[in-house]
Amino acid sequence: MNRDRALELVKKQITEQRYKHTLGVVESAIWLADKYGADRDKAEFAAIFHDYAKFRPKDEMKQIIAAEGMPLDLLDYNMELWHAPVGAYLVEKEAGIKDIEILNAIRYHTSGRENMSLLEKVIYLADYIEPGRSFPGVDEVRKTASEQLDSALTEAMRNTIIFLMNRNQSIYPATFKAYNYLIMNKEESA
Amino acid sequence: MNRDRALELVKKQITEQRYKHTLGVVESAIWLADKYGADRDKAEFAAIFHDYAKFRPKDEMKQIIAAEGMPLDLLDYNMELWHAPVGAYLVEKEAGIKDIEILNAIRYHTSGRENMSLLEKVIYLADYIEPGRSFPGVDEVRKTASEQLDSALTEAMRNTIIFLMNRNQSIYPATFKAYNYLIMNKEESA
Repeated sequence: MNRDRALELVKKQITEQRYKHTLGVVESAIWLADKYGADRDKAEFAAIFHDYAKFRPKDEMKQIIAAEGMPLDLLDYNMELWHAPVGAYLVEKEAGIKDIEILNAIRYHTSGRENMSLLEKVIYLADYIEPGRSFPGVDEVRKTASEQLDSALTEAMRNTIIFLMNRNQSIYPATFKAYNYLIMNKEESA
Repeated sequence: MNRDRALELVKKQITEQRYKHTLGVVESAIWLADKYGADRDKAEFAAIFHDYAKFRPKDEMKQIIAAEGMPLDLLDYNMELWHAPVGAYLVEKEAGIKDIEILNAIRYHTSGRENMSLLEKVIYLADYIEPGRSFPGVDEVRKTASEQLDSALTEAMRNTIIFLMNRNQSIYPATFKAYNYLIMNKEESA
């Protein structure tokens, strides 16, 4: 599949605003991939498809999570998490993307996880810093992203967790684990 | 054992400053116990002994955690956590306190845990709001503590987690679980 066909498929699935966000994520993902040595083409496709399932009905997402053997604890946490694993599933099924690295980058782009791959980190971070984002702290993370990938990822995750906690929301365990993993496996030289 | 004998035992274990803090925790624990219907005597004794192991040598704490079947993952996280379970062990062994509710209130006063008992909540919170504490946010938690125990506990835990994250520290999993438990089991009427 080429880039134009992928964009065409995604455009049908999401709102215009979300499509604009997606183009921003593509731009940031390619920038990060080139900077940190990730596969540029995989980064581009993972970015294009990362929000593929964002506007699927809640019931459909629930049904897919239950039927496809995804972690059932997802259903106890914020439904904003659901489109990521459901997206990985649908992108394979409906768009025919088979590459497991791309699918995992889509699957973990909202929750994160312990021991993320380079591509997973690139997509998580691109989603956070893409040019359309304007929340407090994003400029600091952009600056760090130009210097050190794991530090930028840690900042983005910390900001996200604190944002959710300040809104009295629960935190999905994989996200806490991802944060702890980054803190506890920081390279001394980094 | 009476109160004076308990205080005498603790005084030998900790610094003068920590002893002053302990008296503050006793005061707040009795206030909270009376307010929320916890056992006043147990609250008093748990408060008196909560920091019993605070100044034990690191190696002794490590050895006790490993030898006494405590969760070994404690050793991967901040050593500030260790004095709580080690304290529960030593308070039983050296001071002869056998009451499991008191011992658990000591054991979980730093990490918290899912589904905390009333006494555990009282001691965790008393440790946070005692009159000697002056960090940012403590007055808000004191105010909430005069109105709703679980809400105050949630605020205290959230503040603690955010404080640690802003210092680039890992968060002990039981603490995250305790926070999520409180958020996800909030009584609608509370």
